Amino acid sequence: MKIHIHKQSTIPIYLQISNQIAQRIHSGLLLENEQLPSLRMLADELSISVLTIRKAYKWLEKTGYVWVKPGKGVFVLKKTNRAQQKKDSSNNWQQTLGINVVRSQYLMNKESVTYNFSKAVVYPRLLPNKFLAEETQKLLKEDASILTTYGSVQGDEELRIEISKHLFEFQKIRSTHENIIITSGVQQGIDLVAQAVLKPGDSVIVESPCYGGALDIFINKGIHIIPIEMDNEGIRSDLIEDVFHKFNPKLLYVNPSFQNPTGVSMSSDRRKELVELAERYNFFILEDDSFGDIYFEQSVRQPPIKYYDRDHHVIYIKGFSKTLAPGIRIAAMLAYGPIFDWLLAVKASMDVGSPLLTQKVILPFLRTDRMRNHVEKLRIALQLRRDRSVDILSTETNRLQFQIPNGGFNLWLSINKPKIDIFDLLKKANEKDISFLPGVACYNNKTNEPSFRISYSLVSEDELSIGLVELCKIINQY
Amino acid sequence: MKIHIHKQSTIPIYLQISNQIAQRIHSGLLLENEQLPSLRMLADELSISVLTIRKAYKWLEKTGYVWVKPGKGVFVLKKTNRAQQKKDSSNNWQQTLGINVVRSQYLMNKESVTYNFSKAVVYPRLLPNKFLAEETQKLLKEDASILTTYGSVQGDEELRIEISKHLFEFQKIRSTHENIIITSGVQQGIDLVAQAVLKPGDSVIVESPCYGGALDIFINKGIHIIPIEMDNEGIRSDLIEDVFHKFNPKLLYVNPSFQNPTGVSMSSDRRKELVELAERYNFFILEDDSFGDIYFEQSVRQPPIKYYDRDHHVIYIKGFSKTLAPGIRIAAMLAYGPIFDWLLAVKASMDVGSPLLTQKVILPFLRTDRMRNHVEKLRIALQLRRDRSVDILSTETNRLQFQIPNGGFNLWLSINKPKIDIFDLLKKANEKDISFLPGVACYNNKTNEPSFRISYSLVSEDELSIGLVELCKIINQY
Repeated sequence: MKIHIHKQSTIPIYLQISNQIAQRIHSGLLLENEQLPSLRMLADELSISVLTIRKAYKWLEKTGYVWVKPGKGVFVLKKTNRAQQKKDSSNNWQQTLGINVVRSQYLMNKESVTYNFSKAVVYPRLLPNKFLAEETQKLLKEDASILTTYGSVQGDEELRIEISKHLFEFQKIRSTHENIIITSGVQQGIDLVAQAVLKPGDSVIVESPCYGGALDIFINKGIHIIPIEMDNEGIRSDLIEDVFHKFNPKLLYVNPSFQNPTGVSMSSDRRKELVELAERYNFFILEDDSFGDIYFEQSVRQPPIKYYDRDHHVIYIKGFSKTLAPGIRIAAMLAYGPIFDWLLAVKASMDVGSPLLTQKVILPFLRTDRMRNHVEKLRIALQLRRDRSVDILSTETNRLQFQIPNGGFNLWLSINKPKIDIFDLLKKANEKDISFLPGVACYNNKTNEPSFRISYSLVSEDELSIGLVELCKIINQY
Repeated sequence: MKIHIHKQSTIPIYLQISNQIAQRIHSGLLLENEQLPSLRMLADELSISVLTIRKAYKWLEKTGYVWVKPGKGVFVLKKTNRAQQKKDSSNNWQQTLGINVVRSQYLMNKESVTYNFSKAVVYPRLLPNKFLAEETQKLLKEDASILTTYGSVQGDEELRIEISKHLFEFQKIRSTHENIIITSGVQQGIDLVAQAVLKPGDSVIVESPCYGGALDIFINKGIHIIPIEMDNEGIRSDLIEDVFHKFNPKLLYVNPSFQNPTGVSMSSDRRKELVELAERYNFFILEDDSFGDIYFEQSVRQPPIKYYDRDHHVIYIKGFSKTLAPGIRIAAMLAYGPIFDWLLAVKASMDVGSPLLTQKVILPFLRTDRMRNHVEKLRIALQLRRDRSVDILSTETNRLQFQIPNGGFNLWLSINKPKIDIFDLLKKANEKDISFLPGVACYNNKTNEPSFRISYSLVSEDELSIGLVELCKIINQY
């Protein structure tokens, strides 16, 4: 269990532990009736005395989060029983406030493991560090004031002009720089659209499974989520019509190309159908095109949904974190119509605009044909990683089911036999310094799901092989 | 009226105009019964044919936003009448969605005017551009990977350690770097706390008047706002108790030192009282300490509210935009208790962490004693600007009432005689390339308010003098 102990903190350590476990119970990361680690086990893991752990568990019992089954262990109490018991006592004023129950994919994994398959981030050595660093140095030498001037809320005009050209070259999308807003990564872009379009209680349609970071945003805002299942062509548009009559959703969030987490790429027919549905029922489509550039064959390349948009139903977002520079957090959002000004107003209230420096960093790269050449190489490197992953995962074990993705960073795996608790698998993997993303992170409505996501993008090639072989071994031991 | 025309857009120009006017009516920037500019006037201002403006006004009339008083002009329709008429027809599907009504201080002013008194931002030449740029160049030379690695969600550890020391040296606050989260400016910090602590319908107490950017956040999230008036010692704590019995607010947002917009500095007794109230009624205090370092005399320097905090009621946020580098958007938030992990989870869902590069930029400056020397000089420069402003505003006109602030960037002015419509004054000022912040931006519940805010920080000293003299002339012409 990932628990942070702050030894310098003025909060007693037992309370730090019990608070963090209570939060996991709140957010559903620890399930009803799930057993907590034994006193001894948790004490060892945290290098803390058994007495302190006992005190933490006592507190959890007293405040109604857990119950003790004599001779068996400590278990998470059912919600219905919990509410009753909790009223009685709580010795921490913050807990009594009922702090917003936040679901967070981020809390599901440790930040640093060697064999990190849990993050869809690209291996730093595959990126043009050196060029970007040199250009940035030149830039600062010429004009130091970019450090000390506010950028505009909408984003640097030079960068928007360059991105507008880039979108045409790479995605066939015609745009004007006036309709582009620079956001701090795709994550902020989704948050921005959620705030501009949706009120608590409003409905959003998502793919099932869906990118977990988007679910976090919608759930934390009290948005009603309508998951629609996918087939080989992407989200099943035939199921959408029905949902409209029932819930009148204002937004559909999709990740059409090499979807995160499944890797599925939406057919062009499906893309057109979504636009037609949006026109018929008047809703926005938020098209998250994080992976569109990472196709492994020309034949699977697709124009984005935005390409088919006629009446401003599609809000398109393209990040540069996946292909160019994760650390600088830059994405571009394209929107038309009254929604544009609202997005701008929300962006102003979020952070008064993204930093100017980081926007300037990627400008020289986009201006030249370096971007084209770089992405070309990146595709090849990632395809090799996909091939290697597929090879290992299908030869080292026969227990995994998966589809081979034609692009992107991710493999979506499931284990049907034997029945394995994925969180138990994660725990065993963590012990071997391996991480992956449990499938439940990609659903709003499941607490148990025999799937998980492997990102083959972040580690070195050697680490990829060693880590995956080791993971297969762990799976075979069940 | 600030209207953007995108000539390349596929939206007809008349619709662009009518949509933007409709948004202003929605958000209360255009008041009920307010007269719109004449056809000719708006046509000239936008360099567009009168026919197009007529078409835009026709659309606004048809969709129930305005009515035409024959021989007099076009006026904003009352809300009650508006709702009825609007149902009938709307030819823009986005409008029919009822996009979230967003209040935005940002929409109130043009981005670029010469005599910009509307932004509380520091004049770039007063900032250590050159040093920061040189250090950043060194940094990039040594380690290009900071461009291409994700920083941690919590923020760069080196920076957090340095900030922890800085907070002790500058604010007497003891902290550990484990309890600091780096945010993209104070604005994002306020958004973060609002999301972690408040649900729509929850209540927040604010100073009246209050920093408008904070009001934007709370209002857009559907938070119930309880404005409490201020006296010379800051927010009137004697009025808070009563409010608690009625609304049970979870958060108090204050800007205790050289408050934005009034410049008032909270007494130490008042600071202690707030902590006692928070302990008695169990609420969080979000202390926005944007201006605490900019005191003009040692005697008015105060330790922050956080200094008196005993049981983790105060969430403290300190930005580096006001003193060091606005363009890089870095602030530090200090929080203890269970709320800390929730803040971290929300930060992850907002943007997966602030860019690493911009965090590294200010590190060398904080590490040396440059920060102390720089802020010392900044205080002197800003004090001179305050003195000059006070001098001009009290000699060039006798119509302005204001208190002289002992620190910060802002002067809060009001005009009681003659009765002047501040938006009319702003329009006349804009014509002379001058901007300021209308007082209504700092209230959640006023549409008419004879006050406005002048920031003396952003322009050059010459521009400060010329612009303020000109503004006084305009005021004298009423």
